[in-house]
Amino acid sequence: MSQALSEFDLIARYFDVPALKGSEDNPFISLSIGDDCALLQPTPHHQLAVSVDTLVSGIHFPVNVPPKLLAWRSLAVSVSDLAAMGATPKGFTLALTLPEANSDWLASFASGLAEAAQHYGVVLFGGDTTKGPLAISVQVFGEVPSGLALRRDGANIGDAVFVSGELGGAHVALDYLADEANQDPLVDQLLQAYYKPDAAIALGQALRGVASAAVDISDGLLADLGHIASRSGLSITVHSHLIPVHPAVTALCNKDRALEAATKGGDDYQLAFCVPESKIPDLLALPFNLTRIGTCKSGAGVLLDDQHILSGGFQHFEV
Amino acid sequence: MSQALSEFDLIARYFDVPALKGSEDNPFISLSIGDDCALLQPTPHHQLAVSVDTLVSGIHFPVNVPPKLLAWRSLAVSVSDLAAMGATPKGFTLALTLPEANSDWLASFASGLAEAAQHYGVVLFGGDTTKGPLAISVQVFGEVPSGLALRRDGANIGDAVFVSGELGGAHVALDYLADEANQDPLVDQLLQAYYKPDAAIALGQALRGVASAAVDISDGLLADLGHIASRSGLSITVHSHLIPVHPAVTALCNKDRALEAATKGGDDYQLAFCVPESKIPDLLALPFNLTRIGTCKSGAGVLLDDQHILSGGFQHFEV
Repeated sequence: MSQALSEFDLIARYFDVPALKGSEDNPFISLSIGDDCALLQPTPHHQLAVSVDTLVSGIHFPVNVPPKLLAWRSLAVSVSDLAAMGATPKGFTLALTLPEANSDWLASFASGLAEAAQHYGVVLFGGDTTKGPLAISVQVFGEVPSGLALRRDGANIGDAVFVSGELGGAHVALDYLADEANQDPLVDQLLQAYYKPDAAIALGQALRGVASAAVDISDGLLADLGHIASRSGLSITVHSHLIPVHPAVTALCNKDRALEAATKGGDDYQLAFCVPESKIPDLLALPFNLTRIGTCKSGAGVLLDDQHILSGGFQHFEV
Repeated sequence: MSQALSEFDLIARYFDVPALKGSEDNPFISLSIGDDCALLQPTPHHQLAVSVDTLVSGIHFPVNVPPKLLAWRSLAVSVSDLAAMGATPKGFTLALTLPEANSDWLASFASGLAEAAQHYGVVLFGGDTTKGPLAISVQVFGEVPSGLALRRDGANIGDAVFVSGELGGAHVALDYLADEANQDPLVDQLLQAYYKPDAAIALGQALRGVASAAVDISDGLLADLGHIASRSGLSITVHSHLIPVHPAVTALCNKDRALEAATKGGDDYQLAFCVPESKIPDLLALPFNLTRIGTCKSGAGVLLDDQHILSGGFQHFEV
């Protein structure tokens, strides 16, 4: 009746490590990996922000994606949800489903995950590894002073609409993911945008008390503005000539394709947000690359150059 | 450029419902489904207990499992981790990966989930639905007064070892899952144990301040006692004749098979725990079905009838 050590038990060796778990005296984590639950000690007078995202092989990323980059991207897309709430990232759990426990793959994935975790100031405090088709589910935890979170439902008629960074790069990168031999530095910029989206944590925190509503651009600019419009009960008008397009997209694509990538392509993980006119001077004093692209009006849905392109009213099942 | 509503957006209709989200004035949930993150308002002077479990089709459950029962089981196995910490269940998120958005399947799954959620006093406050091979990842959140959680690392030499309930039923049920025509009431009891494990929430809470260490029996009695032994730095001796075997297992199986199911079969979700001799009177005054099966001693690993069957020293990557 001796109990064999399964290969999946051994996975602990890749994840139950200081590079991912961080310091033992982290005041937020009272008990980490290795018990029935992790125990967190929330900071008084703060709310806990929680979000989960699953990436499935062949659906959300190509089957042959380098595991180190996949790990970075998996964590960044979840951390981006914390950015959109103005929360400070604290930690995460990982539910990893793998067809086999391949040690080269696991070592590379764990090293990418550790790099991203250190970049975003989060520690891994738990998870689950299971056998099955490759899928990665990351649940992130952040904190925000009670009442200061940036929500989707706070926009008001008359607010200006802004976006951070430059859009469309990650979407156009999809055309090049399989093309490993491509040496074009413009393509390299796109792949960087896709694999290493830089979640706008510092911007989100700076927008506390400034923005009336915010969302991260994971589904595409217009679809995500649709979430704000729907939850805030208003319409949002966007002017296409104001949208900041990623320079590599402008260089590599014709005008229609570039606009489509910047407005409908997801995966950029910049923030779109609304700001009352009275707060615009405060906003423009912040050290971020921000562009005003539109305005909140009465009505419903999202309009691009006065064309109604989203009727609003639906929502994802998500946080 | 009109944006089509994907079938996966429609999944919100099954999960973003009062039967799962609970009352709007839940003090623990400041913001539920529909934003970038959920916002939780932790209770002062409490720790947050968090655990995640993924169930993969064909690995953790048969492909043709009734979705209503699958939903119940998915939530119960995660809630059981809260029970093992002595935590009070508060809420959960659901990361659901589905090959297709089949409305009959979803309606049945959601109704089972709502039933289990009400049974355990938890509400669904967020999640993610993705397309891919069927897998269900449930992350549960509970609270426990700071410092009172039942951990795996608190057992001491001389402590008595107890187990709740009767063991082996869910494991033997695996032999009958495909046999839909079976009308034997004994088999029905086993299937009930498998599909509707009753996470020992009330027992876990009653063990605060009484038990020195606890674990839920998900990997099998001896393997899970091995986690306590390893984390507490001692050995655990168990006597096979003391182990409470599920009566349907005793009736349907020969003695060896019954003992194997009760000691090595996972999936029972009872609690195994250690209690100092001085607290045994307090323990026996509690209104639960509990059995003393062994003792904590010096050394390492787990012994059954003085045979060393687990050397200890490994651990899962999990919480």
